[in-house]
Amino acid sequence: MPEQGKRGGRRARLAQRAAKPAFDPCPPGQIGGQYKPLTLPEIAAIHDTALRLLETLGMGEVPDRLAQDLIAAGARPGPPGRLVFPRSMVEGVVRQAAKRFTLHGRDPARSIEVGGDRVHFGTGGAAVQTLDLDSGLYRPSTLADLHDFSRLQDTLANVSWFTRCCVATDVPDNFDLDVNTAYALIRNTTKPVATSFTLAEHVAPIVRMLDIAAGGQGAFAERPFLKAHISPVISPLRYGEDAVDVVYECIAHNIPMSCITAAQAGATAPATMAGFLAQSLAETLASLVMVNAIKPGFPMVFSNWPFIIDLRTGAFSGGSGETAVLNAASAQITNWLGLPSGVACSMTDAKAIDAQYGAEKGITSLAAALAGGNLIYESSGMTASLLGVSFEGFVLDDEMHSHTYRALRGIEVTEENLGFDAICQSVLGEGHFLGSAHTHAAMERDYFYPALADRAEPRSWQDSGARDAWSTARDRAREILRTHHPQYLSPEQKAEIRANFRILS
Amino acid sequence: MPEQGKRGGRRARLAQRAAKPAFDPCPPGQIGGQYKPLTLPEIAAIHDTALRLLETLGMGEVPDRLAQDLIAAGARPGPPGRLVFPRSMVEGVVRQAAKRFTLHGRDPARSIEVGGDRVHFGTGGAAVQTLDLDSGLYRPSTLADLHDFSRLQDTLANVSWFTRCCVATDVPDNFDLDVNTAYALIRNTTKPVATSFTLAEHVAPIVRMLDIAAGGQGAFAERPFLKAHISPVISPLRYGEDAVDVVYECIAHNIPMSCITAAQAGATAPATMAGFLAQSLAETLASLVMVNAIKPGFPMVFSNWPFIIDLRTGAFSGGSGETAVLNAASAQITNWLGLPSGVACSMTDAKAIDAQYGAEKGITSLAAALAGGNLIYESSGMTASLLGVSFEGFVLDDEMHSHTYRALRGIEVTEENLGFDAICQSVLGEGHFLGSAHTHAAMERDYFYPALADRAEPRSWQDSGARDAWSTARDRAREILRTHHPQYLSPEQKAEIRANFRILS
Repeated sequence: MPEQGKRGGRRARLAQRAAKPAFDPCPPGQIGGQYKPLTLPEIAAIHDTALRLLETLGMGEVPDRLAQDLIAAGARPGPPGRLVFPRSMVEGVVRQAAKRFTLHGRDPARSIEVGGDRVHFGTGGAAVQTLDLDSGLYRPSTLADLHDFSRLQDTLANVSWFTRCCVATDVPDNFDLDVNTAYALIRNTTKPVATSFTLAEHVAPIVRMLDIAAGGQGAFAERPFLKAHISPVISPLRYGEDAVDVVYECIAHNIPMSCITAAQAGATAPATMAGFLAQSLAETLASLVMVNAIKPGFPMVFSNWPFIIDLRTGAFSGGSGETAVLNAASAQITNWLGLPSGVACSMTDAKAIDAQYGAEKGITSLAAALAGGNLIYESSGMTASLLGVSFEGFVLDDEMHSHTYRALRGIEVTEENLGFDAICQSVLGEGHFLGSAHTHAAMERDYFYPALADRAEPRSWQDSGARDAWSTARDRAREILRTHHPQYLSPEQKAEIRANFRILS
Repeated sequence: MPEQGKRGGRRARLAQRAAKPAFDPCPPGQIGGQYKPLTLPEIAAIHDTALRLLETLGMGEVPDRLAQDLIAAGARPGPPGRLVFPRSMVEGVVRQAAKRFTLHGRDPARSIEVGGDRVHFGTGGAAVQTLDLDSGLYRPSTLADLHDFSRLQDTLANVSWFTRCCVATDVPDNFDLDVNTAYALIRNTTKPVATSFTLAEHVAPIVRMLDIAAGGQGAFAERPFLKAHISPVISPLRYGEDAVDVVYECIAHNIPMSCITAAQAGATAPATMAGFLAQSLAETLASLVMVNAIKPGFPMVFSNWPFIIDLRTGAFSGGSGETAVLNAASAQITNWLGLPSGVACSMTDAKAIDAQYGAEKGITSLAAALAGGNLIYESSGMTASLLGVSFEGFVLDDEMHSHTYRALRGIEVTEENLGFDAICQSVLGEGHFLGSAHTHAAMERDYFYPALADRAEPRSWQDSGARDAWSTARDRAREILRTHHPQYLSPEQKAEIRANFRILS
């Protein structure tokens, strides 16, 4: 195992085991799709409108290199300055596109399969403010925060991949920022990770660093454990040149991508929800067409994130019924196309870790998960309409996701579980089910027992100090940060990276 | 309008109007059923097991009067001391049972239709502890609390009916308790209300009081605006004599009923979820068979509430993934039978009004609503595994329900909403959608704008005092309690009631 020193690896494994219960009745990757916000004719109408938009309006501001590749793949000139995509071209791309693929963890045991109806929660964000553990107030996020968040989440079973959750605002240079962000990820976790590249020319040097972590030149590309978050489409319906350049470079280095459409209802897309979904689908299809024009079948998470604007203020809002139903619908449409679906949920506008935080996260994450979103981004630790991120939030969200996964797991209807004989025996016998073997087995196998949630009755709660979830989570986050110091890079790897890059931590 | 003095009525109407926005984009009664936790074969297997339980084991401890009625309706002797119900008898009862009916408000504008796939949130509880507005701690609930909760909820549009949420623990006598509970309801609200009757002989006198409120003898029975919560089945699979007596008396006085099965997984019912649902369905069917044996077609809400036990402690737990999926499944099964479904969700084990409170309520209420639960009980204000109730909780839950209703309302897919032409116009024109007529119309019509939720960015939030939802809700609850003093009984009605009953408030 070249990627970790022997002692470090063992310590890390022990820490991981301690953080996860011996048996998890509802692990990540449960099956969604039981919630269908749209009927099939409604999906077909939205899909048809999206294809009409692509074949009539198409995409504007197409960079020259991309225009050549698109035209070679079947695109045609459309309205002045635009390329349009015939319906058959788009349908062909959907057919040939990657349907399922592996998001590799540097530790292969932590890899996840993307696609089908499996649901995984993970992060996405780019918060610029950290909710300070000591003051309970926000301050600019730092590189030290990013290291702390990375090792905190390393212990949380329900963060299935880790995209850098905050921006190190204390690193002014863009190249330093991208390098040090990637370093924080590989130093502190062996889960699948993800980041953004500010510019295409940052990709190659960072891959050299990832190669060092992977054990040698070319090793990263063989099992790429980092994916890129890119927004190559600017709503409405045009490409963004810098992001398109990053796409080319990621494909050249075999970095899988989440191509994210983040249109905003009423601002960069229609406020009517059906129209919003049609445009946003067209835009994410334009990303898929692009990726497949460059390299057919290249892995791309179809990340169609419907964003809501509070039209009273023009500000983005992440925690509402509109967000819930739109992201659920987006997941449903993408799964209907057979593509790996990425949505953004479990978001909140709350700044405090309070009842608003819980309700908005609970509603949006359950909706997206029940609808079968494969990768649910922004789902851990994010606060304040994605402007903020919180240590306490991370540990609370991890437990909330277990409840969601437990709901998704559903009800196993088998002869054994229906238990006709067990019921007859109990009713005609002791008159209750306590202590029976049938009960004990189910208790161990089927029920999730939260570690943080307070289930005491009021008096006991008051006797224990009348604490709220924020306070309980603060203690837990502090304990993890005090005790979990994983060593996922060997001293030699660290030295080689520091010799070649300006590592600021 | 005999039930309210002229000035009082106008004042009440003004208060009501002030509490509800001019236009509600997602009012109560949205359509559920988009979430189907069970497949049709799974429902059939659970249903079949329930019918087998009723025809094989049947019900124990059947009171004599009920036994006669049941035998007349087709029941037969079963195992010693038990009556069994042939499959055809139960299927016939389901066919003839009331499918849809009106829960009358004393104000007819506040009546609701129960049945189909319409979803309404309301209360159910019998909390014995109130979360004190001043101390933030729990203390025994009082009659004064019940009056305060009744007039508080009177302003909340998303409490569609009001079951007394707490028990006046300062009223020791059971008859006084039932009388004063009913009085608190009719004095403070004209919504549909509900209560429990400790004993059958309390029913007739209380109906006399309801007649006074309704405008004269016999007036209540013509449009009964109060329903009874009764648990006539004691799990597993036996009747409870006192509650059965109350059922007879309620039917005699035309009081519609919620017959509630509250089996506890692993204690009074199997811990395996499929077996639990089968037994609990059999038990609620036994209530339905009873009601229809006494009076065919009498309105009964099929209230199959799956309750979860934390098997580590034996305590009831209301806020979990298990609760979410089981209550959703219960709603789905009842709706499949075509009966009016009652489930219990939007519950929490939290004592504080905190992130745990929000997440548990968000997850359980969305699940039950998406599954189409017609009446979702316990959904407002309840805390502490139903042991507690909170003023702040009521106002926060009201806003949360709007998000849930907004999600339920779904996405209207029409040519107009798909907006192909509007998108083309914007893309080829200004390049955005801000300020267009299409956007303005949608903003007014399709989006819910919360009044309590904080959507400010972190700095503004901090500048305004870094408040949490508990604190914001406390202010709102206090303001309502200070200003909303409805007068739903005329001075003459109050005098007549006080002359005939020991009114303690």
